[in-house]
Amino acid sequence: MAHNAFYAQSGGVTAVINASACGVIEACRRHPDQIGKVYAGHNGIIGALTEELIDVSRESDEAVAALRHTPGGAFGSCRYKLKDIETHRAQYERLIEVFRAHDIRYFFYNGGGDSADTCLKVSQLSEKLGYPLTAIHVPKTVDNDLPITDNSPGFGSVAKYIATSTLEASLDIASMCATSTKVFVLEVMGRHAGWIAAAGALAGQGEGEPPHLVIFPEIAFDREAVMARVDYAVKTYGYCVIVVSEGARYEDGTFLADAGNTDAFGHRQLGGVAPTLAGMVKQDLGYKYHWAVADYLQRAARHLASATDVEQAYAVGEAAVELAIEGKNAMMPAIKRAAGTPYQWHIEPAPLAEIANREKFMPRDYISEDGLGITQACRDYLLPLIQGEDFPPFDNGLPRVAKLAKHRVERKLPDFEL
Amino acid sequence: MAHNAFYAQSGGVTAVINASACGVIEACRRHPDQIGKVYAGHNGIIGALTEELIDVSRESDEAVAALRHTPGGAFGSCRYKLKDIETHRAQYERLIEVFRAHDIRYFFYNGGGDSADTCLKVSQLSEKLGYPLTAIHVPKTVDNDLPITDNSPGFGSVAKYIATSTLEASLDIASMCATSTKVFVLEVMGRHAGWIAAAGALAGQGEGEPPHLVIFPEIAFDREAVMARVDYAVKTYGYCVIVVSEGARYEDGTFLADAGNTDAFGHRQLGGVAPTLAGMVKQDLGYKYHWAVADYLQRAARHLASATDVEQAYAVGEAAVELAIEGKNAMMPAIKRAAGTPYQWHIEPAPLAEIANREKFMPRDYISEDGLGITQACRDYLLPLIQGEDFPPFDNGLPRVAKLAKHRVERKLPDFEL
Repeated sequence: MAHNAFYAQSGGVTAVINASACGVIEACRRHPDQIGKVYAGHNGIIGALTEELIDVSRESDEAVAALRHTPGGAFGSCRYKLKDIETHRAQYERLIEVFRAHDIRYFFYNGGGDSADTCLKVSQLSEKLGYPLTAIHVPKTVDNDLPITDNSPGFGSVAKYIATSTLEASLDIASMCATSTKVFVLEVMGRHAGWIAAAGALAGQGEGEPPHLVIFPEIAFDREAVMARVDYAVKTYGYCVIVVSEGARYEDGTFLADAGNTDAFGHRQLGGVAPTLAGMVKQDLGYKYHWAVADYLQRAARHLASATDVEQAYAVGEAAVELAIEGKNAMMPAIKRAAGTPYQWHIEPAPLAEIANREKFMPRDYISEDGLGITQACRDYLLPLIQGEDFPPFDNGLPRVAKLAKHRVERKLPDFEL
Repeated sequence: MAHNAFYAQSGGVTAVINASACGVIEACRRHPDQIGKVYAGHNGIIGALTEELIDVSRESDEAVAALRHTPGGAFGSCRYKLKDIETHRAQYERLIEVFRAHDIRYFFYNGGGDSADTCLKVSQLSEKLGYPLTAIHVPKTVDNDLPITDNSPGFGSVAKYIATSTLEASLDIASMCATSTKVFVLEVMGRHAGWIAAAGALAGQGEGEPPHLVIFPEIAFDREAVMARVDYAVKTYGYCVIVVSEGARYEDGTFLADAGNTDAFGHRQLGGVAPTLAGMVKQDLGYKYHWAVADYLQRAARHLASATDVEQAYAVGEAAVELAIEGKNAMMPAIKRAAGTPYQWHIEPAPLAEIANREKFMPRDYISEDGLGITQACRDYLLPLIQGEDFPPFDNGLPRVAKLAKHRVERKLPDFEL
């Protein structure tokens, strides 16, 4: 007999998290004997707690298919981490009430490391609270910091966007450097891990090709060494392109972005490694600079998604449903890379207990000895992930995005305070 | 008998200035009876003054064709404005020496308003210094502020990029706003004219659709009114997206970006309307914010060029050569829009004297009455310019760009000090 499924998006969204949603929903539709309706949480897990459910079964096949090329989180995401069952028993009991009220027996949670922890806790409900639930985590994070899986869906598209943007902006500054800007700084995401910054390095392929420096959170920032390299690049190549991670930090752990900028009122000014670093360049070397902060643009840039990433994002969604149907509780479909070339990948289930709350940083041998670039091993790892283009359809000059009806499921339970 | 041509790129580069170069070069190659070799100035007009010429005739047809999809200025650009002939007679005489030494009788100058002024002055050499030269200006500027022409090549692609990025980032913040970021600020180029900011408004189409505010340089910034609107958007739609021009300024003309930020050392911090505005939001309303500064990324984003823009950029390059061959000195091929729909355009020559040193600002009736959005008239003007996609070819996950040999022409003259 078929039971219903619950799907929720969690944490920072990506250009392809909706492709995973598409994979989950389409796979559920292919198994009407096991899975009845798919309900999506409005704003993630909060939607389950507050019983704000979107009836995805009422969306047309076309609208669901369009999720594959729509960035952002179509059902709403949230940053909300459930504490352990002992501390927050009321919340877990509420989840079960909602699941029971709507005959939900499958739980698909689409998120990163923190979310994997939530999913793991939900997967334990079955045992601890005696409700039959199969919980599967669908991996997603632009930060690429999930363990076990070879890469995280969402990352490949940011990587392609940052590598392309670095290449394009480098051509711009190269044309202007004789009489104008000498240094260009691009700030990219990655508070703890430098994977996205590393992707910027794909824009150049050899000695002197931009970017001339990559600044990782994993390597303590050494102002003198960085400025010496910037000066060298400007004197040797005429200009210098720097890709810097938002998480760049000093030896003592202080973020560059937090280190002392104040506004007109003396308030500490948060954010902006790029302007901070550009200011140092001006101060120490006197060069004219430009800087860009890609922020949400990078993780929403579905127009330049990696086809490999889109395919993998869809595949982990689809695989999550297959695992659930096989009764594999507390698992995550992980991407495994086969050894050798050409690049080949497949999906293998991994136990959530090995994934939750662990971060995967750049291995030291992916970062060049001087700490300011990537190695061939890193390039070999990254390049397959940005392969292929998967341009969305365009209408009237702009990308077409999914228009969902988002019918709400009728509520059956009393209100619940978060 | 055939004479040689000189081509130079000037001022800030664009995603499609090389498409104009491609148009000039390919058109010259189609007229071997009139035009011999094409020499490009290395770093713009400076290359002519210093006799650093690139022999474009030695580039393969394939390399020249690849210029059509390569951003930046392939031959190098510069910010260098020739003063009037009376003041800088030596420079003009030097130009003629170089032109004479290399049998250059056609001068194609690819730039914006300042460059049109230089081109106009060069066009007067023929008469004032008795050297037979035909000078044609090839329009280019992301700022879209050239007069006479309906739009400027380079603008349509930035407009498409900013509209798309605004759409994508808006989907991102819309998914997160329930528990996280409420306000997103995107800073775009346009120091004097708000055309690029206006393009951001194409992302939304009706009441409540993001962006909720557009801040133009043409409208004095009123902090209270802006904050009231931001607050309204957050309270009504859950979030607020703002597109702000780098040229946003107060009633007294002070740029927001210059208004008082200081770094840790008390130095005035330049640049960054987006962080400044985001800081105001935090201070006045307390909302969590994110901000992005697109900077060079926007004007180099050839991967998302408007097909209309690419076509027009090529066409003005080609038309410049036709005009030169017809002996039309001191002209610029301008884009003319036919009345009515569907959008149709053609090229008409316009006298440089009417173009040089004039800026075209947003007409007041393109900006909504409250000064924080665009009107239907503006939308009707902008939409045709972002139509069509012209994706570059990709190799190994990244856009393919032109690889030029850039053979230098042998110098025949003594050095010249700029």
